[in-house]
Amino acid sequence: MELLEKLKWRYATKAMNGKKVAQEKLDNILEAARLAPTSSGLQPFEIIVVSNQKKKEELKAAANNQTVVADCSHLLVFAAWDTYTAERINKAFDLTIELRGGSNEGWDKYRKFLLENYTKRDAKENLNHAAKQAYIALGFALVAAAVEQVDATPMEGFDPAAFDKILELDKKGLKSCVLLTLGYRDAEKDWLANLVKVRKAKNDFFTFID
Amino acid sequence: MELLEKLKWRYATKAMNGKKVAQEKLDNILEAARLAPTSSGLQPFEIIVVSNQKKKEELKAAANNQTVVADCSHLLVFAAWDTYTAERINKAFDLTIELRGGSNEGWDKYRKFLLENYTKRDAKENLNHAAKQAYIALGFALVAAAVEQVDATPMEGFDPAAFDKILELDKKGLKSCVLLTLGYRDAEKDWLANLVKVRKAKNDFFTFID
Repeated sequence: MELLEKLKWRYATKAMNGKKVAQEKLDNILEAARLAPTSSGLQPFEIIVVSNQKKKEELKAAANNQTVVADCSHLLVFAAWDTYTAERINKAFDLTIELRGGSNEGWDKYRKFLLENYTKRDAKENLNHAAKQAYIALGFALVAAAVEQVDATPMEGFDPAAFDKILELDKKGLKSCVLLTLGYRDAEKDWLANLVKVRKAKNDFFTFID
Repeated sequence: MELLEKLKWRYATKAMNGKKVAQEKLDNILEAARLAPTSSGLQPFEIIVVSNQKKKEELKAAANNQTVVADCSHLLVFAAWDTYTAERINKAFDLTIELRGGSNEGWDKYRKFLLENYTKRDAKENLNHAAKQAYIALGFALVAAAVEQVDATPMEGFDPAAFDKILELDKKGLKSCVLLTLGYRDAEKDWLANLVKVRKAKNDFFTFID
């Protein structure tokens, strides 16, 4: 399976060479993220795509000065809804009705169920739930990048509050939860470039109930 | 890009026809999940692969009686570490040293950092963090299934405590966090099979800082 070869090729690139990712490749990676499924189809996050060099430098300072944040081509900031609100849930359901040309009893009932349950949960629980959905899309973007032979680094090592401030995410009710750099490896500068990929043995990872 | 066509083809299949997924396809999907990156490379989850019909029926009862849980070919239960422990962190670092043939100062320092920080966080925070990593692998498995033209349904609508009990996950210090069914769509029985895929418009999903 060709895909697995691509997934073995990819690694969490620690140094990039500044080369730009072509628009078509970027579009394909972003589209994969947009197509990722989410719980109840709510897509409770957005993606900020930063290619502005000055802004990347500013964000780098809020990401433990990791050079890849500035040397990548595009920095994707996955920013989750800070909570579920009736407005957000209704907007998602209304979009579905619009695109599918109508509603039905089951769908209306399901909307009501989510409105009742999600809006009364505390914001932290909702943010965690929303962030998990963003991680599915992170997975989609990572695989799409590998298919496009674009290097990519998923990153949690940053100051979310500082990112939120720099990107003015509070205004949108969003909280940054994970990053993905896109670009091309600088193999000579990257200590990780030539090291063996480490994964748990299958026996330690899978249990089969046949 | 062929991948995007596959991602448009896939949908959260609500009815499956019981047909078995061939071993090679299953292996490829599982391998994609195993190759998914995780925070600090800890892979803080396992995957229980259930094909036993009796067990699937038992689990279906703990998943709101959703028929797809029993009618799928294989049910994947993503089960996250209930917390980070020194033993688990050390095992992951030891594996890395073994596979890469040695350690270094930076790596030792990083291990110490994780040991100090992760083991003092509360279990719920650690579980949430571990579950997020499982969602990346869920994304990888979903994309791999689409590439293999195997239908797949990501599911959060189940009783995690009941699943943990049925699968005896407590003994392993694991907590079920998300499901993925694999199989083949029964388009005639599936109300969702022929509906338009709904995703937010690009303008509502991406912000570009060029």
